[in-house]
Amino acid sequence: MNADSNINRRIVLASRPQAAPTAEHFRLEQHPVPEAGAGQMLLRAEWLSLDPYMRGRMSDAPSYAPSVGIGEVMTGGTVSRVVQSNLDGFKPGDLVMAYTGWQDYALSDGSLVTKLPADMAQPSHALGVLGMPGYTAYAGLLDIGQPQAGETVVVAAATGAVGSVVGQVAKLRGCRVVGIAGGAEKCEYAVKELGFDACIDHRAADFAKQLEQACPQGIDVYFENVGGAVFDAVLPLLNVHARVPLCGLIAQYNGGSADTSSSVLMRRLLTRRIHMQGFIIFDYYQKRPDLLAAFHKEVGAWLAEGKLRYREDVVDGLENAPQAFIGLLQGKNFGKLVIRIDQK
Amino acid sequence: MNADSNINRRIVLASRPQAAPTAEHFRLEQHPVPEAGAGQMLLRAEWLSLDPYMRGRMSDAPSYAPSVGIGEVMTGGTVSRVVQSNLDGFKPGDLVMAYTGWQDYALSDGSLVTKLPADMAQPSHALGVLGMPGYTAYAGLLDIGQPQAGETVVVAAATGAVGSVVGQVAKLRGCRVVGIAGGAEKCEYAVKELGFDACIDHRAADFAKQLEQACPQGIDVYFENVGGAVFDAVLPLLNVHARVPLCGLIAQYNGGSADTSSSVLMRRLLTRRIHMQGFIIFDYYQKRPDLLAAFHKEVGAWLAEGKLRYREDVVDGLENAPQAFIGLLQGKNFGKLVIRIDQK
Repeated sequence: MNADSNINRRIVLASRPQAAPTAEHFRLEQHPVPEAGAGQMLLRAEWLSLDPYMRGRMSDAPSYAPSVGIGEVMTGGTVSRVVQSNLDGFKPGDLVMAYTGWQDYALSDGSLVTKLPADMAQPSHALGVLGMPGYTAYAGLLDIGQPQAGETVVVAAATGAVGSVVGQVAKLRGCRVVGIAGGAEKCEYAVKELGFDACIDHRAADFAKQLEQACPQGIDVYFENVGGAVFDAVLPLLNVHARVPLCGLIAQYNGGSADTSSSVLMRRLLTRRIHMQGFIIFDYYQKRPDLLAAFHKEVGAWLAEGKLRYREDVVDGLENAPQAFIGLLQGKNFGKLVIRIDQK
Repeated sequence: MNADSNINRRIVLASRPQAAPTAEHFRLEQHPVPEAGAGQMLLRAEWLSLDPYMRGRMSDAPSYAPSVGIGEVMTGGTVSRVVQSNLDGFKPGDLVMAYTGWQDYALSDGSLVTKLPADMAQPSHALGVLGMPGYTAYAGLLDIGQPQAGETVVVAAATGAVGSVVGQVAKLRGCRVVGIAGGAEKCEYAVKELGFDACIDHRAADFAKQLEQACPQGIDVYFENVGGAVFDAVLPLLNVHARVPLCGLIAQYNGGSADTSSSVLMRRLLTRRIHMQGFIIFDYYQKRPDLLAAFHKEVGAWLAEGKLRYREDVVDGLENAPQAFIGLLQGKNFGKLVIRIDQK
């Protein structure tokens, strides 16, 4: 199915999954392309970001952000092109980063819209290494994790959009970096391409033992984006004064459970004087403009100089977003998952 | 039994409790009073502090400090008088704060010994409001809790050595303070004498509901020294960006369990961006001399001016220390528990 310039394809939430989402929880609809009114602009999406946090939006459990309503367009960040504009500062042809969701076209009043260079070589980077996932890695690692040279930093989902940046930035700061990933191919990539000191396959039967052996000095910073059984293996290895930036729990999003009781966790936090801190990157856009500027400058330079590697998993076609997202929650993607929306 | 100047009474660990300690886990021994050798002084204890952390020392489970060995003297802080001294800077009659444990006499090489004013009006305060428990409250609340005027601060064991200082300092900083304590008498004391805005009895059948009603704006800082069922009631009330200084888990020390799984706790830490940090006050003596000086100055002044109330639960006689300690773990004390060792 190709995009038609008269039709706006929208993927809406059809029903709420109780466990892992399946195709039936999404519905593709076709609507007329809207017209920009006064104080509005019309945006056409070129790239759509798919991220684990979207699973939370499909649920009506209380979280940090409102749920997507049944029948509403799935939320998501896009790189979009301005088609029409009745807004000062935006003109047709401008390239922007916006939160227009899983659809071809959207109206915008300019809020939460950031301009990108119109000739940006790889616009999809604004959805990954130079965007929200990259800033998540940078802010969580540096502001909460406070890694010191020589310390051991462990990160799960090591080849993902966030984990790959966490590990590489930690390496650039002089740390020993141990990744955790699913499967031999990803682990090999983390070591050979990303430069991690080691990467452990969490599917291995002796995963916990391998992790312990890879961290002979214990763990000083654990960047948590997984939870579940991976965290259970990490917890006994956390050193005194360890820091645990907690930015995601993908293993739990579909209802998976952890066996450890909170009393075990809390006792460990106490005796090891561990600092565990949940964070949502959106807070950091508001409260730390200094850090955001440092991120853009530093990560942008590392990327340009080839000191930081970045891998995308590109899926073509908006209509394939549901299946790609279902696979993301199962760890089937390899690198930052983005949807290339059909070009006109 | 009275102290005899030729005999050193020592209370040693007889065996390790698996659950709540009982009298059989302690043994009172009598030994000759030792003589101070070169570079040593002989100290005679006048006051012994009993604190919940001592339960951890009775166990051989890994913790932040070594266990007491079977047959060894129970550890503990004391206010002691110098009897003999072959150490520069200490002379007979000097009053000191030391860690000489549950015994009348001890030799010391001066390490971990702090001089007190020889004419100190209430020397036992050095074991409580002006000592380790007071500094625990001050450092944990201010450095990790970061309470802001108008915020809601909740503290359990509200009339205890730590909790009473946490709540009063938070009030002095302009916070709404809700205590949690065991029984109507302690709750009344927290409100009427300590000036808390409310205090909830954790033994009440509708404890969780009462706590929620007492915190209509949620909880911004929860000073955790209890764990277990109390924490389960607090967790749903923690606000976005709440801070949880974690300094003790008395409800768990005897093996009590919490039902909440760590996945529930972690999800809450994440979505509410909660900062939970275990701490051990001994770290703060090393790393924050500035804060220690501020504590002595500020809390000392508040106490002298009557702005801060302090209650002691005094038990006479070293031989009664085991029973008093067993009661401490059951919440039977009312105020800071200290043993007044028989005077010569």
